[in-house]
Amino acid sequence: MKRRFYLNKMDIEAGVELFFSKLEEYFRNDEKEVIDVRESSGRVTAEPIFANENVPSYNSSAMDGVAVISKHTYGATESSPKILELEKDFEYINTGYPINKPYDAVIMIENIEIIDDTKIKIRNSVFPYKDVRKVGEDICKGEMLFPRYHTLTENDISFLLMAGVFKIPVLRELNVLLIPTGNEIVKPEEKTEEFQIPETNSAMIKNFIEKYNASVDVHSILPDDLEVLKKTIEENIEKYDLILLNAGSSAGSKDFTFHAVNELGKVIVHGLNIKPGKPAILGIVKDKPVIGLPGFPVSCNIILEDIVKPLILNKTKEEVYYDNEIIEGVSGKRIHSSITEKEYLRVGVGKVEDRYVAIPLKRGAANISAVSKQDGVVYIEKGIEVLEDGEEINIHLKRSKEIVDNNILVIGSHDLLIDLLADYIKRYDKNINIVSANVGSIGGIMAIAKGYAHMAGMHLLDPESGEYNISYIEEYIDEYTLMNLSYREQGFIVQKGNPKGIKTFSDLTKDGVRYINRQKTAGTRILLDYHLEKEGISPDRIHGYSDEEYSHVNLALKIKKDMADVGLGIKAAANIYDLDFVPVAHERYDLLIHPSFIDDPRFKLIQEIIGSEEFKRDAEKLGGYLLKDTGNFIKE
Amino acid sequence: MKRRFYLNKMDIEAGVELFFSKLEEYFRNDEKEVIDVRESSGRVTAEPIFANENVPSYNSSAMDGVAVISKHTYGATESSPKILELEKDFEYINTGYPINKPYDAVIMIENIEIIDDTKIKIRNSVFPYKDVRKVGEDICKGEMLFPRYHTLTENDISFLLMAGVFKIPVLRELNVLLIPTGNEIVKPEEKTEEFQIPETNSAMIKNFIEKYNASVDVHSILPDDLEVLKKTIEENIEKYDLILLNAGSSAGSKDFTFHAVNELGKVIVHGLNIKPGKPAILGIVKDKPVIGLPGFPVSCNIILEDIVKPLILNKTKEEVYYDNEIIEGVSGKRIHSSITEKEYLRVGVGKVEDRYVAIPLKRGAANISAVSKQDGVVYIEKGIEVLEDGEEINIHLKRSKEIVDNNILVIGSHDLLIDLLADYIKRYDKNINIVSANVGSIGGIMAIAKGYAHMAGMHLLDPESGEYNISYIEEYIDEYTLMNLSYREQGFIVQKGNPKGIKTFSDLTKDGVRYINRQKTAGTRILLDYHLEKEGISPDRIHGYSDEEYSHVNLALKIKKDMADVGLGIKAAANIYDLDFVPVAHERYDLLIHPSFIDDPRFKLIQEIIGSEEFKRDAEKLGGYLLKDTGNFIKE
Repeated sequence: MKRRFYLNKMDIEAGVELFFSKLEEYFRNDEKEVIDVRESSGRVTAEPIFANENVPSYNSSAMDGVAVISKHTYGATESSPKILELEKDFEYINTGYPINKPYDAVIMIENIEIIDDTKIKIRNSVFPYKDVRKVGEDICKGEMLFPRYHTLTENDISFLLMAGVFKIPVLRELNVLLIPTGNEIVKPEEKTEEFQIPETNSAMIKNFIEKYNASVDVHSILPDDLEVLKKTIEENIEKYDLILLNAGSSAGSKDFTFHAVNELGKVIVHGLNIKPGKPAILGIVKDKPVIGLPGFPVSCNIILEDIVKPLILNKTKEEVYYDNEIIEGVSGKRIHSSITEKEYLRVGVGKVEDRYVAIPLKRGAANISAVSKQDGVVYIEKGIEVLEDGEEINIHLKRSKEIVDNNILVIGSHDLLIDLLADYIKRYDKNINIVSANVGSIGGIMAIAKGYAHMAGMHLLDPESGEYNISYIEEYIDEYTLMNLSYREQGFIVQKGNPKGIKTFSDLTKDGVRYINRQKTAGTRILLDYHLEKEGISPDRIHGYSDEEYSHVNLALKIKKDMADVGLGIKAAANIYDLDFVPVAHERYDLLIHPSFIDDPRFKLIQEIIGSEEFKRDAEKLGGYLLKDTGNFIKE
Repeated sequence: MKRRFYLNKMDIEAGVELFFSKLEEYFRNDEKEVIDVRESSGRVTAEPIFANENVPSYNSSAMDGVAVISKHTYGATESSPKILELEKDFEYINTGYPINKPYDAVIMIENIEIIDDTKIKIRNSVFPYKDVRKVGEDICKGEMLFPRYHTLTENDISFLLMAGVFKIPVLRELNVLLIPTGNEIVKPEEKTEEFQIPETNSAMIKNFIEKYNASVDVHSILPDDLEVLKKTIEENIEKYDLILLNAGSSAGSKDFTFHAVNELGKVIVHGLNIKPGKPAILGIVKDKPVIGLPGFPVSCNIILEDIVKPLILNKTKEEVYYDNEIIEGVSGKRIHSSITEKEYLRVGVGKVEDRYVAIPLKRGAANISAVSKQDGVVYIEKGIEVLEDGEEINIHLKRSKEIVDNNILVIGSHDLLIDLLADYIKRYDKNINIVSANVGSIGGIMAIAKGYAHMAGMHLLDPESGEYNISYIEEYIDEYTLMNLSYREQGFIVQKGNPKGIKTFSDLTKDGVRYINRQKTAGTRILLDYHLEKEGISPDRIHGYSDEEYSHVNLALKIKKDMADVGLGIKAAANIYDLDFVPVAHERYDLLIHPSFIDDPRFKLIQEIIGSEEFKRDAEKLGGYLLKDTGNFIKE
């Protein structure tokens, strides 16, 4: 008679830690499959996913109304309205329809007065691209949609389809074998004798596990027979990712689970200092977990919740979404809202020095990226015209607070290496997400100064010293930590073959050259202005100087679409669209670190990642990056 | 050309209220189907569900160890152990196995010392039924498992199977038709021209809705044609519970949704004061909701979240479970726990006067009812021997705080009418749950005095005055409100045909009559003692006077199982097991109301329900209830 006592009862936390530490290799080994995006709700990305298309793919109307030539509206006011003529000054347009030349702006239907079939009256002028959704506004081809280990929602599916992604690599679902054991056990429907025990746990276990990315096969009930049990485990261990035995996990005379597992492999933990749930067996056979679940249903439930569930989520990398928590935080940006409408503002959320900060995502009704990337929603009630930055707000979370607590806010000038980092960091800890927002380098300094970000990316040339970033930072912050991420090759992004022959800054003033600029707070804009001043070129000689885009990629896209001939930007952006590139300078791109983040283990992890050869190799593949100082402190 | 402005833009809260008010009949009309319990995870009960079997169905061992005759263990101590002999004093037994006569208690394997193959040494005595799971301990045949409109979890499925319920009536799943519309819309996979708009919303909408108890059929894309749209709605409105149109909901020239819905039925709301999401259309055709979802994905998402989801949940009565919140509260009971083990204590939770109170559910490892009925879990860490009542604790919720906030705690002497009420109240508001715990009448008074319950049921006879409840309450509480629920017929529950001829209290002392008693704090026990004293019968003349059960139903079950011949209890309990009943008295059963609950709308609802003829009719069907004063205040 084999009878066994619990020799090494452990606390559950210690038991789980020990067990999981033996399974590190098991957790690390991903298996992928490529599936239809429409079938991917709740599944987990196996790789970073990039956009195949621009969203939207053309300039379109954001409103139902009339497409107009903006110049023709100038001068219209409440007291002196203007009359517009159909097909000369305007045409009717519906939401989502393309804006064709010569039209360049939209007036919404509520703001026009119809005079007759061919004439309308307007009482307001509009600027170019007013209520026009510009090509690539939501996402540009080649940009990263999601890092690996992202659990896909129905909103993500919509986003992926828009971005032209129809097939997607996801982690394979876990397959679990559940083996009910016991001579006295019968299917509940087949119970005929009072003393038979109905086998009801398998229904609970199967339904519990199948809520996650896992399927469960339930084996026929096995008798209390050590050899049968061993044979069944041996025959199935290759086919399944996880075997669960129920019950036979305690110390009774017929509890063969311990012996079966220990003879085929090794029992790591037998017995836990919990009540109920004590008799759990945590073992490993052929590098796969085999768990003996206690037979009593409450005990079984506890082991499911506290051991099997985290084990499954560690393996499948799945995030369980919650949308029921409301937290207090502050707005990380000044927001103008509507007096007459309640606004649903989607936000990224991070915890900087014990304070939750909400960073607004794109606000347009068409920008599904904001729903896809949201950590929460802030309701700006009707009647509130301005939400100040730093103002206290309620954030309605769309993910668990636990996940949000781990978010790293990277606000400032965006760089493709931030996306690369966002993917890399998930390999080390699937629960860390990088929330990035592109507000320009100066915006990044302000975000660190005000405690709205953990890190800020910047590349600000001081025209006087020729030095980067430091003089700008020191205007706002006395004590700071600055770390180099890379040197980036800036240059002229031009059409393939450089048909306009752009080589120098003075070439930008040539006839027929259409320039596309970056916004005033961008480091690249400052670089341009520095060179223009150095060479004595007046901005008004450059056609398109006042046309602004908000990112390198959007700028490159505009050139790809032949809406401009040249713009200053980084080489990696030119590479995405297979455009040509004329190098101008290497600029230093640094990360300014919030003081509270310096000693954070997540920052140590970032340092480790960006210091690794693997990361640098992948960064170099993007093109135009020099990584000689990556991870070095400029100032600490 | 049909062009339309938003004439009556509404706030979303007002719009939803107006729309839902027109759908009251739609929400009320339930359709049921009977399905296999194993397939019922996430589905919603259509009726109250009752146990078909006792759980467990026989007396069984709660531990691996030895079954003993408790008398033979008396006198064993640490310093003077006793030796027990196999098959004379003990037999080995595994968890879950039946306890057969003459054995009546279990000693766990860890607490015995094995001397040889036939002898063991013990150092502790055990009382009868120690570590024995008594028949019906978790639930008795005929007891209510769930009220209607309960969303079933995997734990519930296990509980149902144990209780012998294999088929279950649930509400039918909602079927939804989604009609994408628009000349410019194409399937994303079929997009060939830059200006075509990929139809990506249907994937989002379908995956969103199918997370709930609903299935979605996606129609082929319809052109912008009013007649086609009308024809399609007309052809499908009978077949589906809900039709969604996307898009065509705004005020553009091709937005035919408004006209189609308004010509076939009525548009209730067009246009909301929200951003994004403004162009929503909420209409009714043939008493069914037809919703025009905006085309922009963010707008569409908002209408899905804030209108379609609550509409679906109102119709399907589904509760969405959350398990991520931790709240602070107090323990509603003194709990002894283990020094060496962390205990997972399942609790019902209610908010009494702004304080969350956790009421422990059954604690045994086998009592799945506790997992099934839990609102939360309290972890009692290793080393804590006693959790005092009123002590502050963290409650890890298993349902949303919103649901828990609505819970009504009814603590005290249990009555079957409380279960009836728990089912009735769900008809009026699916989000109100009654959490009841049976702690006896005196326990109920204490619970109200300490603020641990909203209501307490009691039936305490004052032997001196012959009056009920008041003198007991006034010992503890000065100002109180007491309402009558019923008069219950108490009497002798006896075997069918009353073979022992029990008619009077003195018959209880007859030879060969095995009595089964209630616990000391129970009103029924006080009633017995009152009569024994009045008739001068000494309790020690009654065989089984010290055998106690904790509910009427458990007591009746013991008689049904021929483990006793007679017990005092209510007629309804005798009826469940088809036992005979000898009336003794009508006792008054009152509800003591916590002061903070008097003006609560939930209490008004309870008054309305118990005052209704329908409730009284259903109560009378249970047998033994007089409802002449039901709902009347004894004291207010």
